[in-house]
Amino acid sequence: MNALDRARQAAIAAGREARSAYRGGLVTPTAGIAPGMTQANLIALPRDWAYDFLLYAQRNPKACPILDVTDAGSPSTLLADGADLRTDLPLYRIWRDGKLVEEVSDATKAWAEHDDMVTFLIGCSFTFETALQEAGIEVRHIADGCNVPMYLTNRACRPAGRLKGDTVVSMRPIPADRVAEACSISGRYPSVHGAPVHIGEPGLLGIQDLARPDFGDAVRIEPGEIPVFWACGVTPQAAVMASGVPFAITHSPGHMFITDVPDSTYHV
Amino acid sequence: MNALDRARQAAIAAGREARSAYRGGLVTPTAGIAPGMTQANLIALPRDWAYDFLLYAQRNPKACPILDVTDAGSPSTLLADGADLRTDLPLYRIWRDGKLVEEVSDATKAWAEHDDMVTFLIGCSFTFETALQEAGIEVRHIADGCNVPMYLTNRACRPAGRLKGDTVVSMRPIPADRVAEACSISGRYPSVHGAPVHIGEPGLLGIQDLARPDFGDAVRIEPGEIPVFWACGVTPQAAVMASGVPFAITHSPGHMFITDVPDSTYHV
Repeated sequence: MNALDRARQAAIAAGREARSAYRGGLVTPTAGIAPGMTQANLIALPRDWAYDFLLYAQRNPKACPILDVTDAGSPSTLLADGADLRTDLPLYRIWRDGKLVEEVSDATKAWAEHDDMVTFLIGCSFTFETALQEAGIEVRHIADGCNVPMYLTNRACRPAGRLKGDTVVSMRPIPADRVAEACSISGRYPSVHGAPVHIGEPGLLGIQDLARPDFGDAVRIEPGEIPVFWACGVTPQAAVMASGVPFAITHSPGHMFITDVPDSTYHV
Repeated sequence: MNALDRARQAAIAAGREARSAYRGGLVTPTAGIAPGMTQANLIALPRDWAYDFLLYAQRNPKACPILDVTDAGSPSTLLADGADLRTDLPLYRIWRDGKLVEEVSDATKAWAEHDDMVTFLIGCSFTFETALQEAGIEVRHIADGCNVPMYLTNRACRPAGRLKGDTVVSMRPIPADRVAEACSISGRYPSVHGAPVHIGEPGLLGIQDLARPDFGDAVRIEPGEIPVFWACGVTPQAAVMASGVPFAITHSPGHMFITDVPDSTYHV
């Protein structure tokens, strides 16, 4: 096995070890875990809601780029051999009538309430973070060992069937002279949110205070840094809330599904 | 109005004129018409089949990149203001039980058989042809004024629900020393089929004779040119046939829907 194959095998193994640890009960954000392996947002809905959601995702592809959809009732995905989507994420959220009712590290019990759950795996901006770092652009929440900050915005998604809601964004502070590069690097990954949706001027997105994110952790913004906003895979959770969806299971923001798929797969 | 705005308005106007002519009964392939405006494949299905198809498209995104999905029963799309999807393409195919039963220039009557038709508009490789031409790469079927050649392959799509089928490809002969450039140019348009799926060696795709395409017209291949294959939006029609879909309306291969959206929108 050559050095490149060894590196790839090591990255896949790191992802599998992490999934196994989460299955065993470990709860931790996944930013920076198994670098180079694609991470995904998750939302599982009863089959009755699957078409509305798939259409919502199609109509809002920057926020909801779909990487895989399971068959109804199946907890397996092509994106990670042997993974169980009910247990292999560090933390899940259970939603009833649009309200968050519980966070659990094992969603097996909730999943069993319906025999036709359809699971959507959605691209995550963590995928291009390794590429940003390789270009020498610091990713603040990784450097500081916390979760990425995420914000509800005033930007309405295009509705689909019974689903509506606003866009959620993630934010990374980037030095003013590296913002253009961050745009072009992330833009080459369109199926994991792609280029930023907004740069600077958080007030125009309806964000009052960057120090108080709606999800995840606040991060330092140094002098000379600009807040850069990417569409975020927590957007489906905003739709669950805004639409009063009767039952849904999602990942907890920042606590993603780690796949066996290298980030480079999504590079165009 | 500046020169750029004038050029854009002229391109949009050319697309609208073409749609209007098709509505009036003109039947002609659309390659090279309204250069710079995105063209789309079309398939309309009763609502009962919409989820299976949307899932099929999601699972086979190179062949079936979705640009828009209408609400059930609506013949309108965000992609072209005032367009009527039942009349504004030059030629339609009507399918019953997986068999092509009729080609018509106006699909209004067939459409009216169901009150819940859902229409899918799918990216078309014509979108990057202008970019190829601007790079000085001849697009043979445009140069020769015919339809692009399309072939059924032996490459199975990933099934979804009741839908299965093989991938259809379009072919363009490219000089050997421009193939790499054709790959990188088209690769920057991932939502309209993106980079080629196969280069040279048609036999490995199960194509016996390039001179006998399954859809469209054969084109000249000059010495020193390599046949380059892109995933094609006729793939849904192969699925209609292979799956025995009870009722579907599609565009006729090469006779696309011309939108008001500039090609540059799909450039990453």
